Amino acid sequence: MSTTSGRSPREAMLDSAIALFSARGVAATSLRDVVAHSGAPRGSIYHHFPGGKAELAEDATRRAGDLMARLVAQVMGSADPVGAVDAIIDHWSRVLLEGDFDTGCPVAAAALSSDETPAARDAAGVAFGTWEQALAEALADDGLPHDRAADRAALIVSAIEGALLVSRARRTDAPLRAVGRELLRHLT
Amino acid sequence: MSTTSGRSPREAMLDSAIALFSARGVAATSLRDVVAHSGAPRGSIYHHFPGGKAELAEDATRRAGDLMARLVAQVMGSADPVGAVDAIIDHWSRVLLEGDFDTGCPVAAAALSSDETPAARDAAGVAFGTWEQALAEALADDGLPHDRAADRAALIVSAIEGALLVSRARRTDAPLRAVGRELLRHLT
Repeated sequence: MSTTSGRSPREAMLDSAIALFSARGVAATSLRDVVAHSGAPRGSIYHHFPGGKAELAEDATRRAGDLMARLVAQVMGSADPVGAVDAIIDHWSRVLLEGDFDTGCPVAAAALSSDETPAARDAAGVAFGTWEQALAEALADDGLPHDRAADRAALIVSAIEGALLVSRARRTDAPLRAVGRELLRHLT
Repeated sequence: MSTTSGRSPREAMLDSAIALFSARGVAATSLRDVVAHSGAPRGSIYHHFPGGKAELAEDATRRAGDLMARLVAQVMGSADPVGAVDAIIDHWSRVLLEGDFDTGCPVAAAALSSDETPAARDAAGVAFGTWEQALAEALADDGLPHDRAADRAALIVSAIEGALLVSRARRTDAPLRAVGRELLRHLT
């Protein structure tokens, strides 16, 4: 991945970390792998991330969480909750298929990361909370009582995250599609 | 963990692998860690698992999948689908709380493992499929058409797996409890 296309070298390294985390997890991704993937000069990674892998993993998880939050906000700005869930399922189905089931959610990878990167795990928790809150607000705006909207948003986020890992293990998007159908029945 | 209590040394190593995978993931668990955790003599691990880590990870994932399948069969033998889902949520809530949110589902860890252990990932896919099928059969016995039962079973498995990783990242079982409440509303 080149560092052209308007991203800073730091952002290019974060995007490389996100890609590698989503493919092989945080523990199996070394700083050396991130440098090689991003095409950045060796040594520059410590300039941008003096805290090393723990800092890189935290910032990459935060960036991945923000990117997904933006997608969630976008689909909810242009559709009702049912249409929004449908669009999110379609997005992830494309990610799975294009990556031949070797890529998933980088935030989930951070959630399951080890004690080597505790701040990345915390950033994953913040990201999940942000997505849930955005969904809960849309569901409440749509007429659902607030406590029910919160539970339903938790179900949507967890079901999609779980379906991603089940689909990866089974190497088909059928579980994700089944979860999408059943979520839509639940929402309507 | 001792190798007494009726387990063979091989089973003790598998249980150690399951415990370590569920805590830190597959990539961050070395054969050396498993030997140390199980208290087995160094070198004996290659006697039991000549294929090394890939074989150990595959067999451990299969064992963890079978243990969970037995739990699913047990709760479904003693309750209707609603009661069964409730019991599964309670089980995982206890696991999270007792492990201070440092333990989760070992099969999920295998699902997200890297190319180092492809057979473990496949074993995770088989395990998820087995759990879904058992739940789908119970839901069909309860009167749901087969295609609907399959979708609903996929939602239950994915939602619980996703809730486990969200709960770990947030270090509270609140997401798992919210998902449990919403699943029960969906089931009734």
